[in-house]
Amino acid sequence: MSTHPNASGLDQPPPARTMSRRRLLAAMVGSAVAVGAGVWASRKWAKPIPGGAVMNPRLFTFVGGETGTWSVLQIKAVVGETLPDVKRLDILNTTVPALPDAAKWRLHGVTSNERYATRAEKDLLVAKQAALGRPGATHAALIPIRKNAKWWGLTQDERRGIFEDRSHHVKTGLKYLPAIARRLHHCRDLGENEPFDFLTLFDYAEADSAAFEDMVAELRASEEWKFVDREVDIRLVREGV
Amino acid sequence: MSTHPNASGLDQPPPARTMSRRRLLAAMVGSAVAVGAGVWASRKWAKPIPGGAVMNPRLFTFVGGETGTWSVLQIKAVVGETLPDVKRLDILNTTVPALPDAAKWRLHGVTSNERYATRAEKDLLVAKQAALGRPGATHAALIPIRKNAKWWGLTQDERRGIFEDRSHHVKTGLKYLPAIARRLHHCRDLGENEPFDFLTLFDYAEADSAAFEDMVAELRASEEWKFVDREVDIRLVREGV
Repeated sequence: MSTHPNASGLDQPPPARTMSRRRLLAAMVGSAVAVGAGVWASRKWAKPIPGGAVMNPRLFTFVGGETGTWSVLQIKAVVGETLPDVKRLDILNTTVPALPDAAKWRLHGVTSNERYATRAEKDLLVAKQAALGRPGATHAALIPIRKNAKWWGLTQDERRGIFEDRSHHVKTGLKYLPAIARRLHHCRDLGENEPFDFLTLFDYAEADSAAFEDMVAELRASEEWKFVDREVDIRLVREGV
Repeated sequence: MSTHPNASGLDQPPPARTMSRRRLLAAMVGSAVAVGAGVWASRKWAKPIPGGAVMNPRLFTFVGGETGTWSVLQIKAVVGETLPDVKRLDILNTTVPALPDAAKWRLHGVTSNERYATRAEKDLLVAKQAALGRPGATHAALIPIRKNAKWWGLTQDERRGIFEDRSHHVKTGLKYLPAIARRLHHCRDLGENEPFDFLTLFDYAEADSAAFEDMVAELRASEEWKFVDREVDIRLVREGV
């Protein structure tokens, strides 16, 4: 059997007979491909569909380069290797097949179900939290982190014990709501060898900058952060405000 | 900025200066690309590296077609849509960029950290479980499942409550160890619109076929399975034995 693995082989053939609701929607919106009986058997999905889009509302790409809504104020390694300096950050709710001209790096992740919050904690978060993108939220931070093998070798109850019972991750975040809005993207299970496990994007008003510093300092001083073996802190300000 | 999303855009540009240990290894093993200062800035990673491999030991691809170690005895929908009938199943520890000739479908997933097991349960599992691929394990089953939005909207403690406290998922599996070996692959966070959330591969000796039926029947009768909205049961036998 022909098997030529490459760096971009995660596309999935969508057999018409067995197409899920999600894939059907993606195919209808993202391309002009005819969907009918037998089509799946003859199609090869290695080549990109020109202009076609993968419609996964949970997938985000962060491109560091010369364009984008956000101006980069600073890129600083907290632990481990940094990322190359860039002028702008573009945030896209899609995949980006090629590194755009003049861009220096690209990171992607998916929003997913929460792994540690209890119902009581989730209800508190939902009651207090704001969505990203408020008009006054002119400041932002993208903080990619990777946790070490020891963390990933722990069991769920052990990770929960460190995450909340001893490091108060949710409780710390709650203190800064709704001033600091947050969206977590997971990368560990994207299937490729991702450089980070998580990308967290925060935004806030300039007046809340000191609160943001307090929050990240508290989290970095926690037991949970002993398992972080790479962390880059990217500070951003929105253009045109 | 140029953004032409396609169906295979999950490759990641590996800047030489910032390359992680994992990516560096992948680049060294998987291709003849020169790794040096400045290389990252000029390379475009949209095109596959000919013959290059994505080295992610956690990633597996299952190809239904005409070739592969496993003969397909039966493909049966348990809930929701089925998958097209095929003669053989090939299991590859890599990505497969194109659907091979005569293949009808391809599924992929990554092994990952366990999401529910406690340390006590994990220790019991590790003490009793066998790895896939024992010489006598001539029978196998690949069971792709998808869980509904209600499941994914639950919090960790609610999912754990259903998974173990009320459905005894780990306890049920433990009863059948070491006879039934198992490997779980996650697909939900692969970043594309995957047709399933999980792919579980089991293998066992012919003499343990009845035990395997008992196990899947017990799990399917559990509260957890009320959240399964697609399940396909693919039974396999190893060729040449």
